[in-house]
Amino acid sequence: MTHPVTGGITAPRGFRAAGVYCGIKKNPKSLDLALVAPEGAASAAAVFTTNRAVAAPIVLSREHLRRSGGRAAAIVVNSGCANACTGEAGMRVAAEMAAETAAVIGCPVERVLVASTGVIGVQLDIAKVRAGVHAAAQALSAEGGDAATRAIMTTDPFPKSYAVSTNGPSGMFTVGGMVKGSGMIEPRMATMLGFLTTDAFVEPTVLAAALRRVVDESFNAITVDGECSTNDCVFALASGKSGVAVTHDDDPVFLAALRAVAGHLAREIVRGGEGATKLVTVRVTGAATHADAWLAARTIANSPLVKTAIHGGDPNWGRLVAAAGRSGAAFELDHASVSIGSVPLFVSGVPHDERADDAAGVLKAAELTVTVDLGTGHHHEATMWTCDLSAEYVRINAEYRT
Amino acid sequence: MTHPVTGGITAPRGFRAAGVYCGIKKNPKSLDLALVAPEGAASAAAVFTTNRAVAAPIVLSREHLRRSGGRAAAIVVNSGCANACTGEAGMRVAAEMAAETAAVIGCPVERVLVASTGVIGVQLDIAKVRAGVHAAAQALSAEGGDAATRAIMTTDPFPKSYAVSTNGPSGMFTVGGMVKGSGMIEPRMATMLGFLTTDAFVEPTVLAAALRRVVDESFNAITVDGECSTNDCVFALASGKSGVAVTHDDDPVFLAALRAVAGHLAREIVRGGEGATKLVTVRVTGAATHADAWLAARTIANSPLVKTAIHGGDPNWGRLVAAAGRSGAAFELDHASVSIGSVPLFVSGVPHDERADDAAGVLKAAELTVTVDLGTGHHHEATMWTCDLSAEYVRINAEYRT
Repeated sequence: MTHPVTGGITAPRGFRAAGVYCGIKKNPKSLDLALVAPEGAASAAAVFTTNRAVAAPIVLSREHLRRSGGRAAAIVVNSGCANACTGEAGMRVAAEMAAETAAVIGCPVERVLVASTGVIGVQLDIAKVRAGVHAAAQALSAEGGDAATRAIMTTDPFPKSYAVSTNGPSGMFTVGGMVKGSGMIEPRMATMLGFLTTDAFVEPTVLAAALRRVVDESFNAITVDGECSTNDCVFALASGKSGVAVTHDDDPVFLAALRAVAGHLAREIVRGGEGATKLVTVRVTGAATHADAWLAARTIANSPLVKTAIHGGDPNWGRLVAAAGRSGAAFELDHASVSIGSVPLFVSGVPHDERADDAAGVLKAAELTVTVDLGTGHHHEATMWTCDLSAEYVRINAEYRT
Repeated sequence: MTHPVTGGITAPRGFRAAGVYCGIKKNPKSLDLALVAPEGAASAAAVFTTNRAVAAPIVLSREHLRRSGGRAAAIVVNSGCANACTGEAGMRVAAEMAAETAAVIGCPVERVLVASTGVIGVQLDIAKVRAGVHAAAQALSAEGGDAATRAIMTTDPFPKSYAVSTNGPSGMFTVGGMVKGSGMIEPRMATMLGFLTTDAFVEPTVLAAALRRVVDESFNAITVDGECSTNDCVFALASGKSGVAVTHDDDPVFLAALRAVAGHLAREIVRGGEGATKLVTVRVTGAATHADAWLAARTIANSPLVKTAIHGGDPNWGRLVAAAGRSGAAFELDHASVSIGSVPLFVSGVPHDERADDAAGVLKAAELTVTVDLGTGHHHEATMWTCDLSAEYVRINAEYRT
């Protein structure tokens, strides 16, 4: 049994965190540098952006994870500057950010992971980062999860953290996490950053495999606008302080807890998506293959016509059919079906527009599910989460940065 | 030398057309049925939607082209109802629409091509179509191009037709055309319909190959919102009445004329895109392969962050870099470059934000070009046309149909 607990990223035993202001953002009332530090060297794993325009901190963290064999003593994160498209100078700044943190924490430099989010193409001021690292190290505490969560925000409408405890056959352990989502009024692109912690004992290879499994169904299964950032990354740290050992990446208790935190935080990102007013679960069934199910779900979840129809409360099943049809997935129109909530509007190729008013009622809710069966007679499925597309999204992203 | 001439689809010799109102649309002041009839049987070719949810008229026209060996005596088109997702009944209506036209024109039924655009999932009233076909046949004239163009519109903001004459080594011939683009206030999805005519003499196989070449650089190189409809199609008819023979699909004079008309009409669709205020040419250079160039161009042209930045006049080169980076195309950040108009903002991996004001000036124009070099050292290129993404797009598509 998994149940929510308070504390976010510092809920698991063996983690301290802090969030401070060091002058990277303009507003001194905001926080712009977070430090997460396990006691000793935790097992560490990460998943990085697939964008080929990778930012300096991503390049550095990937290299550090490789060199340390999946061990980390600190994660240092700044908001307000993405350190992306900053060339050799940006790489030096990322390296200095890690070196300064290593010196303060007292660990080898390859045990420091780095992440950044904010404006692209601007150099990060290393003097400010140095001051921030020192202040954050002083402030580290087991109650620091909330401050750290606020320090990684850019224009996120609310801080996003979550934790669950679970009581498995080997005992009680906790998984916590924090994320930032997409907000782009000042920064020039969305960045998704995610941080997961656990006090289970998990070897790096097992942690990496479990993270990969869970990310595919959580952070990789959400979309706000189909844009993948240069700085996206999700880190997981395991301190082992609960004394509960997880020895296989398919451990159902561990996966369930990790999934609970990652899935909750992923959906929080969509809820806080730019201009979003609705959280929409897109379910695709009846796909010929696993890949087809994801292809159709992704196409539907990113379709501007589907997203605007949902925004407008229009039970427009034709747009769902058309998006599935153009996705490239095998699709049999005569056997395909579409439901909004539990209201069937198109069943085995036959329209049921007499149910349109019922479906319009479903669309009034802040959370809803749309289901498209591709009609192939096979049973592969995929689930994604998306938000509606509003004029507010356009307003936010069309605003000229000042 | 190619020069524009009046008359649109009836500008080439040997074509008559008509547009009438037959009651499919609600507004009796609109037109909703078009008939295009070459004298005798013209060579015919077509390109159809790749959407797997194909509408009945697409299924029928594909079959008729096959059975006729690429000959057509008429194209009948209705607006106001897409005859899509209408099952067996819809197939029967499409067949009757062709049969009625064949009877009135006096030709074998497989020499009639059919297209529809409008609301999905609603049966087309065959009685209205019959009346429309009779009225249109009576109204056929060599001056009917404009009426036909208006009869295929749905919520297009303006009618779109064009024609050029060209004087090649073998003599003078003309290429004409009409299209409808994307407008979705009443209809439930965009449909792109295109019709091209020529009085050159072109065998069906040559016409089909030339059409395929030209479509890839015109209608397949535009996007408004990345949505591909169930009813998209482009038809080409060649009457031969100019006496000029085109014997190869790579005939440069014929391709140039066809390209001039198809390219102009394709850009007209983007100009008339929902909520569009700017026509944007997206040029990708320095790609490792032909496919990569198109992949990057398509990703940039459909990126909501790029489209909203352009709408807001923001010279946000970071979004262009990020879209290219996530496209899947080979991309070398350190050698990549971005220009807006002729203003370089990112050159071989180095930002030039000091030119941002100049680029903002370029973005004030109604037409502009953005160029992204992928930095691979290879020289494949692609050009696409897109529009900006405005709050008006959302308003149009979120409106609940009444």
